Amino acid sequence: MRLYHSTASPNSRRVRMFMAEKGISIPFQPVNLAEKEQFSDAFKAINPRQQVPVLVLDDGTAIAEVPAIWRFLEESHPEHPLLGSDATGKALVAMWERRVELDGFAPTMEGVRNAVPGLKSRALSGPHDYEQIPGLVERSKRRVANFYADFDARLANVPFMAGADFSAADITGVVTVDFATAAFKMPIPEDSRALRRWYETVAARPSAKA
Amino acid sequence: MRLYHSTASPNSRRVRMFMAEKGISIPFQPVNLAEKEQFSDAFKAINPRQQVPVLVLDDGTAIAEVPAIWRFLEESHPEHPLLGSDATGKALVAMWERRVELDGFAPTMEGVRNAVPGLKSRALSGPHDYEQIPGLVERSKRRVANFYADFDARLANVPFMAGADFSAADITGVVTVDFATAAFKMPIPEDSRALRRWYETVAARPSAKA
Repeated sequence: MRLYHSTASPNSRRVRMFMAEKGISIPFQPVNLAEKEQFSDAFKAINPRQQVPVLVLDDGTAIAEVPAIWRFLEESHPEHPLLGSDATGKALVAMWERRVELDGFAPTMEGVRNAVPGLKSRALSGPHDYEQIPGLVERSKRRVANFYADFDARLANVPFMAGADFSAADITGVVTVDFATAAFKMPIPEDSRALRRWYETVAARPSAKA
Repeated sequence: MRLYHSTASPNSRRVRMFMAEKGISIPFQPVNLAEKEQFSDAFKAINPRQQVPVLVLDDGTAIAEVPAIWRFLEESHPEHPLLGSDATGKALVAMWERRVELDGFAPTMEGVRNAVPGLKSRALSGPHDYEQIPGLVERSKRRVANFYADFDARLANVPFMAGADFSAADITGVVTVDFATAAFKMPIPEDSRALRRWYETVAARPSAKA
């Protein structure tokens, strides 16, 4: 088993943190995005969508897409569950992780990809070229601001994104905040006290360094 | 247990088809989107995101977001699995279902919501208003065309979206095609023969009427 990833890829970090939380240690194979290695024929044979991360199993099966890789890792290493414990818990982690992704992670990515000069015709990741749409940058800023406000309100009532326990939803959350801070100049607002308290707790976990 | 849904909602149909495939029968509670019932205080108490579908359990727990509802139903009714059988199969269904959603369903929804006059300041579903961006309509058309081409190529090699077996990925696929055909005037191209063969097979299943 081997993880193709990049230290520059927030989606790769979502998988690395998940593995660190579960104590899963496998070889990492760096893919050099700055050198456009993801567009090479060798990498396209692994993932035709030309994206990291990809988990390649010993039989050669390639699993891409973060929630899919997580699902494999959770099924094959069920101890320390990060996707919920019973039917209701699994559903609620899926719901909250998706909301963090759709409301926070995705607009941050959309804002960055539509703003960075080097991604002019690469506004969407994947095998097809799409030109940037400047109006999406401003809309993304509003969406990330709404994400911060909505989840600050939620975290005033619960310790973690999905409720009582740390889960994959928190991983997507901390990766979103760090990505939005570094690449989109949108740190958590000073007055979002519950969100800041949550961030300090999860960012202090050893897995956050992964 | 009760499903809040709308017959006008493609996301609701993804859940109804899933239930029909598994033979799960529970009360359906219609939410009248034309009358803006999803914005009522009563419905906001069920789902603050003001979206259907929502599965409400007997203890009052509200599960929203299609993959989360599916996860609960699959865990509580494991027979006739639609999310994969073993660790690898579960991961591959998650991967392919997500690709169908991100490449086909999501751009169709984006194209429609940015084009329909009645959704002028409602370009994104959820609790916040966002103005339409006309450039997204044209981009969505290109994305849906690429989705059709990419999945026509895939289905030349496998019978179903995720491989050998019918799965949730096919449900998202058939809902996407019907939605793109009816609301975005983008039926499957005549020359996409493998995709058409797949569509005819899955659309003929009794669950497709759900």
